[in-house]
Order: sequence, then structure tokens, then C-alpha cells
Amino acid sequence: MQLSIIGYDPIGSWTRTAAAVDELLQYRNPAGITWINVEGTDGGEAITRLAEAYNIHPLTIEDIQNAEQRPKAEEFDQYLFICLKAISQKDGELVFDHISLVILEHTVISFQQLPGDSFNSIRKRIMNNAGKIRRLGTDYLSYLLLDSVVDEYFLVLDALGDRIEKFEERAVDENDCGFIPELQNTKQKLLHMRRVIWPLRESLSLLLKMDSPLLSRDLMPFFKDLQENAVQAAETVETYRELMAGVMEVNLSVMSNRMNSVMKVLTIISTLFIPLTFIAGVYGMNFANMPELSNPYAYPVTWGVMIVIALGMLFFFKRRHWF
Amino acid sequence: MQLSIIGYDPIGSWTRTAAAVDELLQYRNPAGITWINVEGTDGGEAITRLAEAYNIHPLTIEDIQNAEQRPKAEEFDQYLFICLKAISQKDGELVFDHISLVILEHTVISFQQLPGDSFNSIRKRIMNNAGKIRRLGTDYLSYLLLDSVVDEYFLVLDALGDRIEKFEERAVDENDCGFIPELQNTKQKLLHMRRVIWPLRESLSLLLKMDSPLLSRDLMPFFKDLQENAVQAAETVETYRELMAGVMEVNLSVMSNRMNSVMKVLTIISTLFIPLTFIAGVYGMNFANMPELSNPYAYPVTWGVMIVIALGMLFFFKRRHWF
Amino acid sequence: MQLSIIGYDPIGSWTRTAAAVDELLQYRNPAGITWINVEGTDGGEAITRLAEAYNIHPLTIEDIQNAEQRPKAEEFDQYLFICLKAISQKDGELVFDHISLVILEHTVISFQQLPGDSFNSIRKRIMNNAGKIRRLGTDYLSYLLLDSVVDEYFLVLDALGDRIEKFEERAVDENDCGFIPELQNTKQKLLHMRRVIWPLRESLSLLLKMDSPLLSRDLMPFFKDLQENAVQAAETVETYRELMAGVMEVNLSVMSNRMNSVMKVLTIISTLFIPLTFIAGVYGMNFANMPELSNPYAYPVTWGVMIVIALGMLFFFKRRHWF
Amino acid sequence: MQLSIIGYDPIGSWTRTAAAVDELLQYRNPAGITWINVEGTDGGEAITRLAEAYNIHPLTIEDIQNAEQRPKAEEFDQYLFICLKAISQKDGELVFDHISLVILEHTVISFQQLPGDSFNSIRKRIMNNAGKIRRLGTDYLSYLLLDSVVDEYFLVLDALGDRIEKFEERAVDENDCGFIPELQNTKQKLLHMRRVIWPLRESLSLLLKMDSPLLSRDLMPFFKDLQENAVQAAETVETYRELMAGVMEVNLSVMSNRMNSVMKVLTIISTLFIPLTFIAGVYGMNFANMPELSNPYAYPVTWGVMIVIALGMLFFFKRRHWF
Amino acid sequence: MQLSIIGYDPIGSWTRTAAAVDELLQYRNPAGITWINVEGTDGGEAITRLAEAYNIHPLTIEDIQNAEQRPKAEEFDQYLFICLKAISQKDGELVFDHISLVILEHTVISFQQLPGDSFNSIRKRIMNNAGKIRRLGTDYLSYLLLDSVVDEYFLVLDALGDRIEKFEERAVDENDCGFIPELQNTKQKLLHMRRVIWPLRESLSLLLKMDSPLLSRDLMPFFKDLQENAVQAAETVETYRELMAGVMEVNLSVMSNRMNSVMKVLTIISTLFIPLTFIAGVYGMNFANMPELSNPYAYPVTWGVMIVIALGMLFFFKRRHWF
Repeated sequence: MQLSIIGYDPIGSWTRTAAAVDELLQYRNPAGITWINVEGTDGGEAITRLAEAYNIHPLTIEDIQNAEQRPKAEEFDQYLFICLKAISQKDGELVFDHISLVILEHTVISFQQLPGDSFNSIRKRIMNNAGKIRRLGTDYLSYLLLDSVVDEYFLVLDALGDRIEKFEERAVDENDCGFIPELQNTKQKLLHMRRVIWPLRESLSLLLKMDSPLLSRDLMPFFKDLQENAVQAAETVETYRELMAGVMEVNLSVMSNRMNSVMKVLTIISTLFIPLTFIAGVYGMNFANMPELSNPYAYPVTWGVMIVIALGMLFFFKRRHWF
Repeated sequence: MQLSIIGYDPIGSWTRTAAAVDELLQYRNPAGITWINVEGTDGGEAITRLAEAYNIHPLTIEDIQNAEQRPKAEEFDQYLFICLKAISQKDGELVFDHISLVILEHTVISFQQLPGDSFNSIRKRIMNNAGKIRRLGTDYLSYLLLDSVVDEYFLVLDALGDRIEKFEERAVDENDCGFIPELQNTKQKLLHMRRVIWPLRESLSLLLKMDSPLLSRDLMPFFKDLQENAVQAAETVETYRELMAGVMEVNLSVMSNRMNSVMKVLTIISTLFIPLTFIAGVYGMNFANMPELSNPYAYPVTWGVMIVIALGMLFFFKRRHWF
Repeated sequence: MQLSIIGYDPIGSWTRTAAAVDELLQYRNPAGITWINVEGTDGGEAITRLAEAYNIHPLTIEDIQNAEQRPKAEEFDQYLFICLKAISQKDGELVFDHISLVILEHTVISFQQLPGDSFNSIRKRIMNNAGKIRRLGTDYLSYLLLDSVVDEYFLVLDALGDRIEKFEERAVDENDCGFIPELQNTKQKLLHMRRVIWPLRESLSLLLKMDSPLLSRDLMPFFKDLQENAVQAAETVETYRELMAGVMEVNLSVMSNRMNSVMKVLTIISTLFIPLTFIAGVYGMNFANMPELSNPYAYPVTWGVMIVIALGMLFFFKRRHWF
Repeated sequence: MQLSIIGYDPIGSWTRTAAAVDELLQYRNPAGITWINVEGTDGGEAITRLAEAYNIHPLTIEDIQNAEQRPKAEEFDQYLFICLKAISQKDGELVFDHISLVILEHTVISFQQLPGDSFNSIRKRIMNNAGKIRRLGTDYLSYLLLDSVVDEYFLVLDALGDRIEKFEERAVDENDCGFIPELQNTKQKLLHMRRVIWPLRESLSLLLKMDSPLLSRDLMPFFKDLQENAVQAAETVETYRELMAGVMEVNLSVMSNRMNSVMKVLTIISTLFIPLTFIAGVYGMNFANMPELSNPYAYPVTWGVMIVIALGMLFFFKRRHWF
Repeated sequence: MQLSIIGYDPIGSWTRTAAAVDELLQYRNPAGITWINVEGTDGGEAITRLAEAYNIHPLTIEDIQNAEQRPKAEEFDQYLFICLKAISQKDGELVFDHISLVILEHTVISFQQLPGDSFNSIRKRIMNNAGKIRRLGTDYLSYLLLDSVVDEYFLVLDALGDRIEKFEERAVDENDCGFIPELQNTKQKLLHMRRVIWPLRESLSLLLKMDSPLLSRDLMPFFKDLQENAVQAAETVETYRELMAGVMEVNLSVMSNRMNSVMKVLTIISTLFIPLTFIAGVYGMNFANMPELSNPYAYPVTWGVMIVIALGMLFFFKRRHWF
């Protein structure tokens, strides 16, 4: 569990890391904005201590620590609570990080289930006084934090989009054994993404409707934009799912067509030779009285008959477009 | 039918079991909170007697006794009625227990269709004065009872989740005869779970909107959390259903691919030998005038021709990626 | 067309049957409650006469007579109109009876399209003064009539449920030719049931919201219960439809697996003998110069080679789990 | 483009046809109700002239002339505008006629895209003073016009319903080549019908909610009935679509079962003879040293062995229920 | 990046192109209506300059420049913002152009992501004073711009509709290898179109509900018509998707039927000859003691038996309708 704290106001900014919650609380900034970032949410006691210091409801703490918690937004008396999932890709697997934000009047506390430095760019922006971040309140900081999470969705979605395009090419290649399992793996990824993006969409809508004094009206367009991005991510997931279904359909149809044409050619070859083999069998019989056998023209005539039968069958198959 | 009664107030607590309703009613606790638990709902007369004592509507009694009743929440003049299903797994089968709660101002009556001790942990909490349970009212007790039922859903869902993961591995194993029936069995379990979890979701939403004086505003976050858990359970069921559909698809596709490749190899072997057998048949004919037969090089040449034909066909099949 | 009339008040009750509407109207009971039951809705003139006597709107008469009319509830100035379908099973076929109720202040008129005695139990209840029926108004009588219709849905659904369970067993039996048509027949029954139960669900919701003085507030829990039963029936239909889809899937998969394994075994047998037949064919050729033929060990060696080839192929097929 | 005008009041009625709009406008009936019917909507100028005379909005004219316009209902200052599709069947093909109604206080203007006499029965009703039509206003006339269009939907749906019933019988007949294309053709018809009936449903709901002074409250039950008919037509279309999906499923399953059983029998016959042919091949070999050949009992013993093998295989196949 | 500006009032109009934003801003028309069109949205700085001059919110600029932005309508203090996608077809591929409109009181600024002259017809209408365009405000100009974009949807949809009709014919042609990939390609086009048309539908509904002073009430019917066109386009896309699904189904069914009938005929031929070949094989055996061989009638009798067997099998197959 790692604790860091940043304080800023229009004039300056400072940053500290702390080993324990009590150490952290000393650094609180009564005048400006304080942003506390907690990496790792296993430390039950430390989080309880932090919660007490900021009057956070026990259910909120539960939601922060429960990595299975679906995205939601809730309004409490003194703070807004938002939790959502950060999605990143590592070694071809999706990593879901459970992110929680507690937005107070002068303080934002962000919790990350997994260690990592996902909010580093925002830290730099504060340090470098980039844009208007230092002049605005906790709502703008929260917007930036949420926005950085949602923006990462599109990185992951773009990577999946490239993969789906490759699937479209691979769908027609019959010797690609790994195709179906990989496709299903991507489908499951999309399913998991949908599961965390859809409720986020609704949570952000709820946030917009809350009309909380903690979110200033001037920032509404930003939060609306955020919500639209979540909608777009959700729609992209749906579109990808439909594209995947199409890819699957093409693959099934191509495979079955090719299999069928192979079997057809093989069966035609067999069918062609079976009647001829029968004729050869007939004249291989050892009956004493088989007048044809002694006829000197019988052998070439038999060959002729066999060739005529074979060509006739080929012609018949061809005319019926069987190959 | 088993009756037990627990009384408690911030200072102390006591518990009794009773053989008959009238005996039970003597133990009522006018000052503190009384919790009556009824196991088994067949005893028509006893339940009617209990209902009369607490002014419970005949339709509520019907809902308590009807194990087919879908989850619902209803507000009556003097009480709230909630019924839902407890789900547990026994010998690989789902067991649905019809649970009903009647929440009065100072009394909670809980009914369980099946015998069992599902609420034992809450009984212990009251006895041990754990948390703030003894200081709060019937609404908090009801929350705990409902929460323990909903929490059990996740145990069952986790077990099903593990099973689905195993299905994903088994989907590619062609010699697994029991796969399809077991998959369908799991699908039906999910279907039954959905059938009892979806209406619960709505019932809890309704409960939140009721604004009944029996549910204190301070506990709203708890009931909201409960409702969110029901939503999450419902969504997990849906996700599992989609995962199962994916597993089925993989299985069908793997089976059909393997079957096809088996048939292809077998057919290729047949196809390879049929023309050769024809040639052997031709020179097995007994015509008197077959000049090739007396040629001393004819036999090795025939072998050569047959080998060339076989290799040619193999080359042709290979080039077309038929095996 | 058969007309019957029942009058009752808390003190007593009487019943009459009548051949014509005018005869019937004489029996009207100005003080108590009158229930007129009309079996058969073809008699245009008689129904028009009845409608005039009770000020019923021409569109209501149309709805009563039109057996295709979907369930609905409508509020008119002086009466409520409800129509729905009674469902029963006769000789394995579903019978849909179009039932209409006109609820006036002191009179209920019920219309049944088909002859039959479906409301007999309610008639007996009135006669025997069972429950509180004689003390309550036309709304309670209407509730009983509607309830008896909806209860019958569950009888039919239970019968279908038993049938679906049998389908689940039959799904794995490959020699069951009638399976698919019977399954489709049951599917169609469910489709037809859904078609009449879904709009009923909405009509009863509408009835609950109407807030008509003809429905006393005290009876609201009963009508709500009725609506919930309709919801439950509708959900049961949906669950059955999903179960049937699962049964179909199992059947298709079992059939196709078994077919495939049959074809595989047959093809393996053919494939095993075709190369051997080729070898036999080779030594059946009549070339003059075939040195093997005169070798005294050639015949047993050939047998040996053939057995080795056969065993080799069997071993190869086995190792690849082809049978 | 054909113009006709009918005027009526409770006392009398008259009808005229006109070649041009200006001629038509002379016949206007200031006192009673005027109904102008326009067949053919290509005559741009004439329609513009008519629109000017009645103050019709340019967008309404566009909607009248655009045959692709989906059903809608709109309220303007001085009139209501409704457009919908009349559906009829001609030579097995659906014909969609774009019908528009402009409802003014004393005038109804109806436009039909295709020539035809679909409103003739209403014309006769006015002429013969049937029912109460002459005593009521333009709203009742509009109701009758809309009702005649919606009633025709059921004629077309009944014809399709008969066809679907025949499909159910044909689904099990394997030699019916035209089955799939005809089924798809019917499916497309239902798709097109749905496309015009669903928006009508909504338009009529909108009309009911408009609360326009042009629609008297007394007629509301009629318009509500109309809307319910549209709902019923839409639901019938959906039911038919599901029935068709069922028919398709039965057909696929029956076809595939029969194909499989044919292939199975054929493959069994081949499999039965292939080992026997191998044995015959063995004793057709020309090795010098084949002791069996000279044994006088070898031939009948060989026959015996072959018969035993054949019967053994048949018994094995039978016991496994392969045929 | 190309800039053009048009000014007009009821009396006259003028047009200019500009290389830079500052040059453009000189031409602003304080009295009449000014329409600025920007082709290409890459020039970040120029667009920022333009935004400053007209007080456009930074998020709006982002939405203008982000080609992935889904259609939306937003109301700001001094302007309305609408963005949508223009769809055209070029070389068989769909081209999506991201179009944004900023509607101020006296100015409309339109942005096109791709260069092109899509709004040329409207420019001409202004120049030629066609219709009432010069007498109306920026709302009417915006309507015309939006309408021209939506109208183009129908051109693209008509082209796709023609293609789908051709697919319906091609679905029954078994030698059409490109069918499945082309079908999928068209399906993907429809998917992409749906993705941009569905949100437009909602955005236009939102615009109608905004009740902004920038949209005069007189023009509401026009915007409503626009929204209905978007709905119709969306519904057409859905209908096309269903038609495509039907085409796919026909194709699969036709292909599989034809494949099956080919395999059946081929298998019947094999099956017919295999028993005959067996008989020939029997009498090709070289046993010393085969009494039939010396019988002078044995050979023709054998032929007779073989013909009888063949005809018997053919008769049996025929009677079972196997070919």
C-alpha cells in the first residue's frame, strides 16, 4: 500500500509520499486543494483510519475494497463517491484495476487496487501548472482523473479493433487452427469490457443529474463530454461484438464450403472408378464359358467402353456443375 | 415446523424455541426488538394464528406459503412484506428456499420454506452484541437477513463460475461425452437463478422508493447497497449465460473441425487406392488377347504407373492443402 | 346461447336460467348484487338487447363478440370492461375461450364465447355463502371470476412443464422420430399462450392504475395479486421457451454427434480394407512375368503384409482417438 | 389523377367528380361536411393548388407525395395530418398504397397514391345515410377511412396465416424444392408489413394524446379501438414471424435427419461388402503356392465365412441401432 | 484547410474564399447572415483562432476536430452545436465525413473533415435567391445544411438496397465464390451506417426538445421532418440488416441442399456397384473346386443376377424417394 499526497493552489504545488495514514494526514492543505492517492486497497486498517479522518461511510469503504464492485456513483452528505474500472492490456491479457474517487470540497482521495502509476500525467500537469488545473477545484481534478481512465479504454479498444481486422483476414484461411480459440478469447475480453463500461455509462449519467454543489455548473460540459465518451466506448464494444459475429459467420461458411468442395472432388474420383472396377471384375471371373474372353477385339473394346463410361460421367458431373 | 424467537435491546438479548404459536406469543418483547423465525411453511393453522396475532393480510399468508411465489416487496398499513429465494447448492443441485420477511415496527417475522439454519450467523451476532445490531431497529435486522441471502447467491455463482471455466477447457476435448448434457444442466441452473434474481432486483428498487416509516433514512445506503448486489448477481448470471454460449460455440466448432479432418483423411486414403485397384482389376481380366500380359516388363511398368498415380494424387491433394 | 342470472346480498341468494334476454331482465335485483352469465356470444340481437338495458357502448359489444380481440381493460362512464382468454387443454390441444366482464355498480355481466361451466365453483361459493363473497360488491365477484381464469393458466402451464421435462429425456434418444414435430407443437402452444397472457399483464396493470370508484381500495391487494399471477404466468411461458430452446440444442447436438460417430466407424472399416483389397488385386493380375507368384513363401508373406498394414492403420487411428 | 368530392349533412348528400382542382373547389360545401378524394399524387401543380386553397403546409404536401414516407400523425394549426399505408395483395404480391388524410373542421381531404376504389364502401354509407355517419363530423369520417385501411391489414394477414399453415405441412416434405425461397418471400412480406404497421401504432397513440379540438371526445373510444387494432396487427405480424422461424427449424431438422438416414443406409451397404470383396480378392490372387485353393471344401467354407462376417456386421450395426 | 465565407440578406449576397482565419474575419457581415465553411479540420491553430473570435467552448473545438466523435447536439449559451457524419460512396467504399455546425444568431460555421464540395447546391441557392432562404435566419440555413447531409444517406441506402436485391438473386447460385465475403462487407457497411445514424436520430430529437431561441418555432416542422428522415434512414438500415440475414439463410440452405443432393447421387452410384463388384470378385477366385465355373449357363445367369440386384436397389432407392 502506497500513499502519496499532492497539494496545490493557483500559486504553487507540493507533493509528498507517506508510509502511514497518520503521517499523510499531517500534510493536509487547509487552504488549497489536496489530492491523496492510495495504491493498493488491501490495508484494511489504514483505509479505515483515512475514512474516519474524512468521515467516509463504512459502505463506501467496502465499495473501495471490493474489487468486484461494479462502477457506480453515489452522493453522500459531504462527498461524492465514484468507482470505475481502469482497463489496460499486459502480455495480451486485460488487466482491470478497480479505481475509486472520493470527492470532497477541498480534497480528492483516489484509490487504486493495483499498484502502478496511471495518474502520473495529471501529477505532472499540476506540478507544471499546465492548463487551468491549479485555478479550478476538486471537481476539475476529478474530471481529469476520470477522463484519463476513460481515455485508456479507447487505447485498449483500438488494439482490439486491430486484432479484429486481422481476424477478418484470417477468417478465410483454413489452416489456422488457433483461430476459433483466439476469437473466443477476444469475445470474452469484449464481454468483460462491456460489463464494466455499461454501468459506468449509467453512473456518469447519474452524476450529471445529481446537481451536487461539489460539481460546479461550469464544468458540466466536461462531465457531459466524459459521459459521451463512455457511451462511445460502450457502443464501440457492441460494434466489435457484431463484427466478431460476422467474422465467425464468414469463417464457418468458408470452412464448410471448402470442406464440402474437397469431399465432393474426392467422392467424384471414387464414383468415377467404381463402375470401371466392376467391369474389370466381371472379366476377371473364371467361368469356363465366357465367349467374350476369346474374342481378339474384346480387350480393346472393353477399354473403349470403360473410357466412354468415364467421360460420360465426367460430362454429366460437369454439366450439373458438380465440380 | 419449527419456531424460534429472539428478543434484544441495546442492553441484552434472549432466545427461545417454541412448539406452538401460542407458546411463542407469550415470549413477545414489548420494549425491545423481537425476531420470530419460522422454519417450514406447511403448518397452515399455526401460520394463520401467527398472522392474526400480528394483523397480517390473508394474501400475505398466501404469498408466504406459496413456494412458487416470485420475489416481491409490498407495503401494508402496519408492515412491509418481502419475499425472495435463498439459493444453495447441495449434491450438485440448486436448492431454492422460499424466504419471507414481515417487518413490523418492533418485530421481524421470517419464514423459511425449508428447514435449515441459514440465519444462524445473525443470531450469533445478536447474542454476541457484534457491531451495532442491538442498537438499531427492525429495519437493520431485515437488512442483515436479506443481505445474508443475497451474499449466498455469490457463493453459488462463484461455484458455477469455476464450473464454466472448466467447461472452457473441456470444450476442446472431443472424447468428453458428458459435455453437452452437463452444459445444458448448468444453463438451466442459470436460467432458474435468473428467474429468481431478476424480480428481486426490481423488488428491492421498489423497497427503496417506498419511503416507508419502517425503513429509517439512515439505513438507505445499506438497502441501496443490497439492491446493487442483486443487480450485480443478475448481471453475473447474464455474463455467465453469454460465456456458456461461447463455450458451446467453441465446442461445436472444434468438434465439427475435428470430425471433418478425420473424414477428410479417411476419404483421401480411399480415393488414393480406388484408381490403383481399378488398374489391378484391369490386368486381372482373363481376355485371351491381352498383349501387355506377355510383355516381360509389363508388371514392373504397371507398378511404376501405379506409384506415379498415387504420388501425383498425393502431390495434388497436398498442394491444395487438403491435408 | 345460454343465459343464467344469480342474485345475492349478505342475507340470501337465488339463481335462474333464462331463454331470452327480456325474461332475464325481469329477474334483476335492485337491492343486492346481480351476476348475469352469458354462454355463447353469437346471438347478436340478444346481446344488443342486453347492452341497451345496461347502457353498454357499441364498441364494447364488438369486443365481446370478436373472439380475436386481445385482452384489454377499459373504463367507461358507468362500467369497467375487461376481456381476457381462458385457456384449457382438451385432447392435447389448447382451447382458448374469449371471456368478457362488464362490471357495473350492482351488476356483473360475464360473457363466455364457448359453452362450458368454468365459473361453477364461484356459483357454488355464492350459494353456500362461502367466505365473505356475499358481503362484498361486484368488484370482489369480478376478482374471483378473473382469478379463476388466471389460476387455470397454471394448470395448463404445469401440464406443459411436465411435457418439457419428458422432452429433456427424449432429447437424447435418437430413434424418436416424433420428437421434432411434437417439440414444435409445444413451442407453438407456448407462443399462443404468450400472445394472450402478455397483454393481460398490461391490462391488469392498467386496471390497478385506473382508480375507478367501481374498484374499492380495500380490494387493491387482491387485484395486485392477480396482476402478479399474470406476470408469473408470462414469465413461466418465457422460461419454458428458453428450456425448449435448450432441449432443441441438446437434441441437435446429440443427434449430430451420434451420426458423426456412426459415419466415422463405417468410414474407418472401409478405409481399412481398401488398401488390402488393392494388394489382393495386384496379385490377381495375370502378367506372365510376375516373379512373386512362383515364390512358395509369397502367399503367407502377403497375408503378413496385409495384417501389418491393417494393424498399423488401426494403431494410427487409435492413437489419434478416431474411434 | 382523379378528383372526386362528396358533400353531406344530416339532411342530404351529393357527389361530383372533377377534372381540375379549380372546378372541384367550386363544389365546396360551406354548411355541411365536404370530403375530397384525390387518386394519384403525381400531379404536383394540382396538389399545390389544392394545398393553397386549404392552407396546407409545404412539408405536408411533400409527405403526401413521397410514397416512401413512413406512417405519421401531425397536428397543425388548422388541420390534422395522418398518413399511412394501405396494404392489399395482388397476384401474390403485396401492394402498398400511400394514403394521406388532411382533417379540417368541415373538410376531409384524402390522397391515394395508387388509383383504385378502396373507399367506395364509405361513399355508399354516406349516400345511403347508413348508421350515424351524416350526423357526425369530419372526425368520424376520418375514423371510418382509417378503419377501412386497418381492417384490410387483417385480410392480408389472414391470407398470410393460411400460407404459414401450409408451410407447416410442407416443412416435412423433402422433395419440395420451392419451399425455402417461398418461405423467404413470405418472411420479406412480413418484414415489409411490420415496417409500415409499427410506426402506425405509434402514430395512432400520438393522435390519441394530441387532444385536438378536431377530434371530439365522444369519438375517443373509436380511435382507441383503431389503435388497438393496429397493435393487434403488429403483434400478429410478430407471431407470424416466430411461427415462420419454427417452420424453418422443423424443415432444416427434418431435411438433415432424412439426409443423414439415407447416407447411413448407403454407407452401411458399402461397409458390408467391402470386407467380403477383400476376401474374394485374396482368393483371386495367382500365387503358385496357395494350399487353400486346392482344398475341395475351401470354396463353400469361404462362402460360409463371408456370410458369417456379413451377418455379424449386420447384427453389430443393428444392436447399436445404426439402422 | 480551405475557408470560404458567404454573406446574405434579403437584398443581396456575396462570397469570398480566404487563406487565413484573420483574413476571413474581416469579411464578417454585421447586418445580414454570415456562413463560414471550413474544409479540413486539422489546422489546430486556425480553428482555435476562429473559436476565439466566436466564443466557442474548447470542448466544442475538440468535438469538431475529433473525427471519431459520435453525432450529437449541444446547447451552449450563445450557440448550438451539432455534429454528424456525411456518408458517401467512393469506389465501392463508404466515406464518412465528420460535419460540425456551430449555429449563432447571425452566423453559421460549418466544418467538414474531408475536402469536397458537398454544400455547393446550398451555396447556389443563396446566390440565386432560390426559395425563401435569403429572407430567413441561420436556423433555416442550418436546416438546409443538415437536410442535404441526411438526404445523401438515402442515396447510399438506395445503392445498398440495389445491391441487396442482387444478393437475393445470387444467393441461389452455388458457383459464386465471392458471395459470402461481399455479403459480409455489405453487412459491415450497414453496421457502420447504423453506428452514425442511430445517435443522429437521438440528437435531432434532443434539438427539437431544446426550445432554444436560436431555432424559431416556425421552423419546427422542418426540423421535425429532418428528424423523421433520420428515423426512416435508421429503420431502413435495420430492414436491410434483416433482409441480409434472410439472404444468408437462403444461401446456406440452398448450398447445403445442393451439396447434399450431389453427395447422395454419388453415394448411390457407389452403393449400386459395390455388391456387383463383390459378386464378380467371388467368381474371380481361383479355387480348384468351384462347380459353377464349369456350368455353361453360369456366366449369363451371373449377369442376370447382377442386373436384378442393381434394378432392385434402384427400385428400392426410388421408392424411398432417395433420388
